[in-house]
Amino acid sequence: MALFDVRDGTLAAGSAIIPYPDGVITERLPAGPQLDPDWALQNPRDYFRVVEKGVPQALKAAKVQAENVIGIGTDFTSCTVLATKREGTPLCFLPEYRKKPHAWAILWKHHAAQSEADRINEVGRERQEEFISIYGGKYSSEWFFSKVLQVLNEAPEIYAAADKFIEGADWIVWQLTGEEKRNTSTAGYKAMWVKGRGFPSRGFFRAVHPGLENVIEEKVGTAFYPLCTRAGGLRPDWAHKTGLREGTPVSVGVADGHVAIPATTVTRPGALAMVMGTSLVHMLLGTTRQMVEGICGVVEDGIVPGFWGYEAGQYAGGDIFAWFFEHSVPESTHREARRLGIPFTALLEKRAATLQPGESGLLALDWWNGNRSVLVDADLTGLLLGATLATRPEEICRALIEAMAFGTRQIIEAFEAKGLVTQTLVACGGLPEKNKLLMQIFADVTGREIKLAKQLQTCSALGAAMHGAVAAGGAAGGYDSIFEAAEHMAHVQKLTYRPRREHHEVYNRLFKEYQTLHDYFGRGANDVMKRLKALKLERTV
Amino acid sequence: MALFDVRDGTLAAGSAIIPYPDGVITERLPAGPQLDPDWALQNPRDYFRVVEKGVPQALKAAKVQAENVIGIGTDFTSCTVLATKREGTPLCFLPEYRKKPHAWAILWKHHAAQSEADRINEVGRERQEEFISIYGGKYSSEWFFSKVLQVLNEAPEIYAAADKFIEGADWIVWQLTGEEKRNTSTAGYKAMWVKGRGFPSRGFFRAVHPGLENVIEEKVGTAFYPLCTRAGGLRPDWAHKTGLREGTPVSVGVADGHVAIPATTVTRPGALAMVMGTSLVHMLLGTTRQMVEGICGVVEDGIVPGFWGYEAGQYAGGDIFAWFFEHSVPESTHREARRLGIPFTALLEKRAATLQPGESGLLALDWWNGNRSVLVDADLTGLLLGATLATRPEEICRALIEAMAFGTRQIIEAFEAKGLVTQTLVACGGLPEKNKLLMQIFADVTGREIKLAKQLQTCSALGAAMHGAVAAGGAAGGYDSIFEAAEHMAHVQKLTYRPRREHHEVYNRLFKEYQTLHDYFGRGANDVMKRLKALKLERTV
Repeated sequence: MALFDVRDGTLAAGSAIIPYPDGVITERLPAGPQLDPDWALQNPRDYFRVVEKGVPQALKAAKVQAENVIGIGTDFTSCTVLATKREGTPLCFLPEYRKKPHAWAILWKHHAAQSEADRINEVGRERQEEFISIYGGKYSSEWFFSKVLQVLNEAPEIYAAADKFIEGADWIVWQLTGEEKRNTSTAGYKAMWVKGRGFPSRGFFRAVHPGLENVIEEKVGTAFYPLCTRAGGLRPDWAHKTGLREGTPVSVGVADGHVAIPATTVTRPGALAMVMGTSLVHMLLGTTRQMVEGICGVVEDGIVPGFWGYEAGQYAGGDIFAWFFEHSVPESTHREARRLGIPFTALLEKRAATLQPGESGLLALDWWNGNRSVLVDADLTGLLLGATLATRPEEICRALIEAMAFGTRQIIEAFEAKGLVTQTLVACGGLPEKNKLLMQIFADVTGREIKLAKQLQTCSALGAAMHGAVAAGGAAGGYDSIFEAAEHMAHVQKLTYRPRREHHEVYNRLFKEYQTLHDYFGRGANDVMKRLKALKLERTV
Repeated sequence: MALFDVRDGTLAAGSAIIPYPDGVITERLPAGPQLDPDWALQNPRDYFRVVEKGVPQALKAAKVQAENVIGIGTDFTSCTVLATKREGTPLCFLPEYRKKPHAWAILWKHHAAQSEADRINEVGRERQEEFISIYGGKYSSEWFFSKVLQVLNEAPEIYAAADKFIEGADWIVWQLTGEEKRNTSTAGYKAMWVKGRGFPSRGFFRAVHPGLENVIEEKVGTAFYPLCTRAGGLRPDWAHKTGLREGTPVSVGVADGHVAIPATTVTRPGALAMVMGTSLVHMLLGTTRQMVEGICGVVEDGIVPGFWGYEAGQYAGGDIFAWFFEHSVPESTHREARRLGIPFTALLEKRAATLQPGESGLLALDWWNGNRSVLVDADLTGLLLGATLATRPEEICRALIEAMAFGTRQIIEAFEAKGLVTQTLVACGGLPEKNKLLMQIFADVTGREIKLAKQLQTCSALGAAMHGAVAAGGAAGGYDSIFEAAEHMAHVQKLTYRPRREHHEVYNRLFKEYQTLHDYFGRGANDVMKRLKALKLERTV
């Protein structure tokens, strides 16, 4: 929970971070049965709890009066799906469903609906449904209908009992305002919805599963509202619980990635916004719809109105370093760092920074968590090539950073192949703050200047506040458009990373090698990674 | 220095290990100039010192009387080359050459003669010289004439001053006996000599370098003696220094790898001997000469008389683990091992041993130090594929062991393609003693039983003693042939490693994947490893 000054986007000196009591549920339901592997759930009661506790705490910490809060924006992980009763009660709140996993909030990173996604893709491709190309060739197991279909397949009684299936982003706004006003953005990116045309036909859903034929009419609905629309005013009970004014305008729901983009200052075509955390998300705006290979989606008005919003990404960002730091850094590095009185990560970065591009002889493929774009293949795995008896940990560390940057460049080139040109990159998220070397290597590899959002780690929060300011409107002290809000509230830092030509030239050569390996292992010439993964499953089950 | 009982090969309970005072000289000559990278020299005075000190010390420790020592065998690293005066004095002993690197003993692992090897291969291929196929397609920079040519190219005054160029193995025997009786084995494996035909023609040497035309006649000679030949008796001065009897029979010189083979019990075709230390050497015996891809050499009588001795190898054995243990084992593993009070290597082995073949999803190419056989390419590098965020150090450790075993299987299959079949493997060296898991994986991967030589780590010493016993002869209490000596003196342990069928079947699948990557990266389809190495040189010089 954070408060931002609507005049210039300044973060109030005081906010609240409330951990979810039940966190991410992957092993066992609270007082309930064990979950299968790949499951990830949340308890919707936690969403309520953090609002109840967090808002009053943030107001107090920031010393802000409720009458000065002119609007509320939210952001939510996506695609997180809830099955609810007609008035919005999640099924898992009801005693009879408390011990049913399918009745809980199915979290974005739930990975147990792969066979459902396969079925959807099979039927989609057969029928040449538009969503196949919108999603770069593949509908993900993480997305809306994969999860809904899993409920239908595995727990038909839950499917039958659910009056609604709804994105968490829309559900929380519904709860706060009493208005079920779903947003067009998550619908477009995760649920096959297309502006002006709506969802695929009932014939498609019937072909996927007879029981799914009427899912839109019965459980989803057809009314969707553009981002920044005022969903309604804060309900009296929530005003009472939070200390905010009754009727405070609340913006329609939005996903945490997309909401950050205008807060990085990217509100027009020409720049690529990079949300760099445990994974990487790349978004840009276009004036036309292009079918770009392996993107996660292209949605009209999906990020800001008037433009096509494109999303792509890399599954492993900071996660790769977390892995490397935990499992591959030798004791000697720790010892030396302690002697110098610095974190071992700083020592590694310092040593890696003295290396020239190409000096280590190493090259990696950044697929430790699969490839999201442009290959859209979770079964690809990481590769390190070029090791010798003289290879040192800082060289491997640098090779992993370079591989990640090559992955981003691969995405940029996929966009450029369709005329979606980017001159600069704007970064936000947790990685840029900590890792100067990483940012410089991204600049050197892509040959582009990288700017940093001023609110690096609170970009989504600022974006949500901007949405709230637009929901409030200019007359109430907010803004009448997200563009206006961005002009005043979004800024970049003075510090930028500029590509060094000499390094860029060496990286051009290394990137060619990366591409050759990328295509060899990723496009079917040698499916060894998939075969090893299949063998692994066979040997562990 | 060790003493063995000629009756049954028992190692006397007492021996002597004498370190070389100047060790391996790679940075700077003692009180002399700095060396270029890739140089490796030794001081021949060290060879004298260890005999003077070591023999009396061993006799004393083992409580053996000199009159009970019936014969002397030696073994030497190969190819180690000395430039000497006519009577055997190394040039580096003379004040005028003391500061000239080329006047010292040029050690087997000296790697600075690559351009000379390239020249030799170029001319050899052009002229279709026989040695090209004998050495599996390539003459190594480590071998005799590469080093001699380097002396001629870089220090013609040393070349001119040298009356002889000689293998260390032959030089030490010459010094001990006063007889310059060179052996056929190192001549065959390292110096292009072929039984019955001798060396390549003067035309070949002239084509390589005009100054080399008469190298054989002038500085090498044409008389070579089979292994186990009695070179002569111990000279009075050496008898005096060592306390041994004057005239004690000394066998002709032999390389440390080859001498070990009969001591593993391998004296007939059908078994593969593996010398497993920092690198791996594989040797077998055949009844005919076959040109096997990428072997290091095939020499008639090269290991035991009457058979063709084949040698192949892998550049990195224990070295890969030394690298992994030093640079890739995380602090948490060390901490847990300390808690359990065991070495961290034991903890890694224990954890790796619980994994099933294929369970890790990892596959590696064991080229951390290049590929010796069958690709004969020092510029190939290591590869690890299949990493995920769940990959653990013990999984990488096991993948490295498996890769090494796949490399051995690749060599076995190259031999088998030419009809050189091996039913069992017999191992000696430092690795088998320490690493049960490694031995079991080698058995599972190759599908063959692995026996262990009884004198695991002293196999070369036992082999040298067996040569000494044959030099002494049956009448003097020794043996009349190496076969007789082996029957009595060489033994295997009771412990053997038998392949487990279920594991072997999974490894058959993984080996196919290994071969595909081996050929893709090693046979020209994608020379990325070489290009990265070239770029590395370009960026570091």
